[in-house]
Amino acid sequence: MATTPVVDIHTHIYPTTYLTLLRSRTKVPYLLDLPDKMAPPRLIILPSDDDPALPAHQRGRPIDSSYSSINQKLDFMKTHGITTSVISLANPWLDFLSPEEGPQWAAKVNNELEDICSTSQNSLYAFATLPLSASSSRITGEIHRLQSLAHMRGIILGTTGLSQGLDDPALEPVWSALESAKLLIFLHPHYGLPSSVYGPRASEYGHVLPLSLGFPMETTIAFTRMWLSGVFDRHPKLKVLIAHAGGTVPFLSGRINSCVQHERHFPENEGGGRGPKRGLKEVLRENVWLDAVVYSPTGVRAAVEVVGKDRVLFGTDHPFFPPLDEGKEEWMSVETNIQAVKDAFGEDKQGATKVLGGNAIELLGLDVAGDG
Amino acid sequence: MATTPVVDIHTHIYPTTYLTLLRSRTKVPYLLDLPDKMAPPRLIILPSDDDPALPAHQRGRPIDSSYSSINQKLDFMKTHGITTSVISLANPWLDFLSPEEGPQWAAKVNNELEDICSTSQNSLYAFATLPLSASSSRITGEIHRLQSLAHMRGIILGTTGLSQGLDDPALEPVWSALESAKLLIFLHPHYGLPSSVYGPRASEYGHVLPLSLGFPMETTIAFTRMWLSGVFDRHPKLKVLIAHAGGTVPFLSGRINSCVQHERHFPENEGGGRGPKRGLKEVLRENVWLDAVVYSPTGVRAAVEVVGKDRVLFGTDHPFFPPLDEGKEEWMSVETNIQAVKDAFGEDKQGATKVLGGNAIELLGLDVAGDG
Repeated sequence: MATTPVVDIHTHIYPTTYLTLLRSRTKVPYLLDLPDKMAPPRLIILPSDDDPALPAHQRGRPIDSSYSSINQKLDFMKTHGITTSVISLANPWLDFLSPEEGPQWAAKVNNELEDICSTSQNSLYAFATLPLSASSSRITGEIHRLQSLAHMRGIILGTTGLSQGLDDPALEPVWSALESAKLLIFLHPHYGLPSSVYGPRASEYGHVLPLSLGFPMETTIAFTRMWLSGVFDRHPKLKVLIAHAGGTVPFLSGRINSCVQHERHFPENEGGGRGPKRGLKEVLRENVWLDAVVYSPTGVRAAVEVVGKDRVLFGTDHPFFPPLDEGKEEWMSVETNIQAVKDAFGEDKQGATKVLGGNAIELLGLDVAGDG
Repeated sequence: MATTPVVDIHTHIYPTTYLTLLRSRTKVPYLLDLPDKMAPPRLIILPSDDDPALPAHQRGRPIDSSYSSINQKLDFMKTHGITTSVISLANPWLDFLSPEEGPQWAAKVNNELEDICSTSQNSLYAFATLPLSASSSRITGEIHRLQSLAHMRGIILGTTGLSQGLDDPALEPVWSALESAKLLIFLHPHYGLPSSVYGPRASEYGHVLPLSLGFPMETTIAFTRMWLSGVFDRHPKLKVLIAHAGGTVPFLSGRINSCVQHERHFPENEGGGRGPKRGLKEVLRENVWLDAVVYSPTGVRAAVEVVGKDRVLFGTDHPFFPPLDEGKEEWMSVETNIQAVKDAFGEDKQGATKVLGGNAIELLGLDVAGDG
């Protein structure tokens, strides 16, 4: 029987270069080695993690070898029948660097990602990282350079852009460069929402509120601002893959449309509509792809309904959400997402197959040996 | 042919009593009459509306007679074939009053709502308003008193509760009183998200970002906190109707579940799960109803999938989102929501009929003369 290729387009790594960079820092984000050499170092990623009142081993989060080991990534892929992964640097990327430091670190990280992929017999491809704190000519320079790296299929992008969000006119040269380089933008959250929204008892729920709600809400706001500012009118060929099935875009797209249609601020345009020239429905079907990292058939179905079944792509979010039971080899988070795709498609096995791998292969032009 | 009853469970009013209260105030929220007697007064509802640099007629929003006129509400219902409406005070309710003022105003507003309903030949029912700034005994006193008002079917509730959110242990007596009075809680947003999340160009998009994204995100956070704090474990009979199809709860429920299952902070419970004893899926199917104010078949379908087709209820959000073209009698916002329900159910006409009216009649015990 032919093997059906399964492609994971949402899977992260902290390559050695990046861990070296974090180790060299003493301000957030930074990596803190513990006196106990057997204990994994701690990543202090958010200002709220950087609490000197806490002992070092309770600050931030442990970064074990699953965050950096390619062998563990390949083992994880084997366990879950994943043929190919498109790896990307995990947040907070290089947003925090000075304009001078950004470009050299971006080049180093992207080169290391390329090296990893080129020794992987086509089981790994990558999304690169941009030096967003640098001048726009340095950013577009790196975009141009990425085209010479054989395994790069796009770039991962946070929601703050050059610091003012994705509706910032200063991003125009970056959008133009990405559009002409035909590099997919993987839009991914990091900053969440201001912690005040979670109330005084938020810490009683661990990381649940910022992770389950803050991330998708941040993503939704970022994408909506990008669309409202007319980015897709000016760059009709731009391709955006939105993390976590679009945050909440599929569910809220009707409400966003309705609010735009009822907003006197927007003049009526030629089509009789309001807001950006290219409506949200059109942009979702022509410029947007969604991953299937949404942990429910309801979420997958909504994603498929707004972008189409050729534009939803399986992902795992590895190495995040590992099993709490360390003896377990299969990851519940991954099994939930695979099952959600299968349940969403029901009898349409071909649809599920495309979401699990075929769509990514076609979109990114992956050389996958699985089918044979 | 028998008329199929259509029930609107999300429709707001500012009764005369409430407008009098707002007119008597000079701090947000307040009502500002303009020198031009023909121009509608302005409602200064948010601190950001209260800008002395703006001329009075540009501050806040105009409150025309559609916000207070029962005749206009009845005309609107006739235009759209709505048999029965369950009216509720629009935000910001009475949250801003002092503990001493709250109870008397709540009684006045609720009595006026009851008077309006009792002269409406069963075409109007109401959700009452609680004096949430008062002591819990005064709040529960009003809940008790509401049971003597024949047309009250529940209470409308903002997301801040007694000021600390809906996961506040101080709300326990209020939940108990609502549970034993069998009054539905209509959970509705008002406060949105901190404006910083919309970035420096937010004003270029009018009210789109806070209305389309802030409201549903606020609602989602409030409900999730309520569930995480165990409210539904302690009050298994509590009934909550969540505005705007649950904010984003239907789409994010899988992710919320997954984050809870992977959160070490929660001990494993008897069922082998983590987090509150009664899981999110169970609570959504046993304690939660959703309105269908979501402007897309995708949204309606997702709502139906997580709570069941007996638990989604049509609403309009009247008098908000009127047609921009003032010559038009039909409201696009209403037509979009009716069509979304019909499209979501397709051939299942009975399912659509239940969402458009039958479910509300059954849940709230409405005396509706339509079917005959």
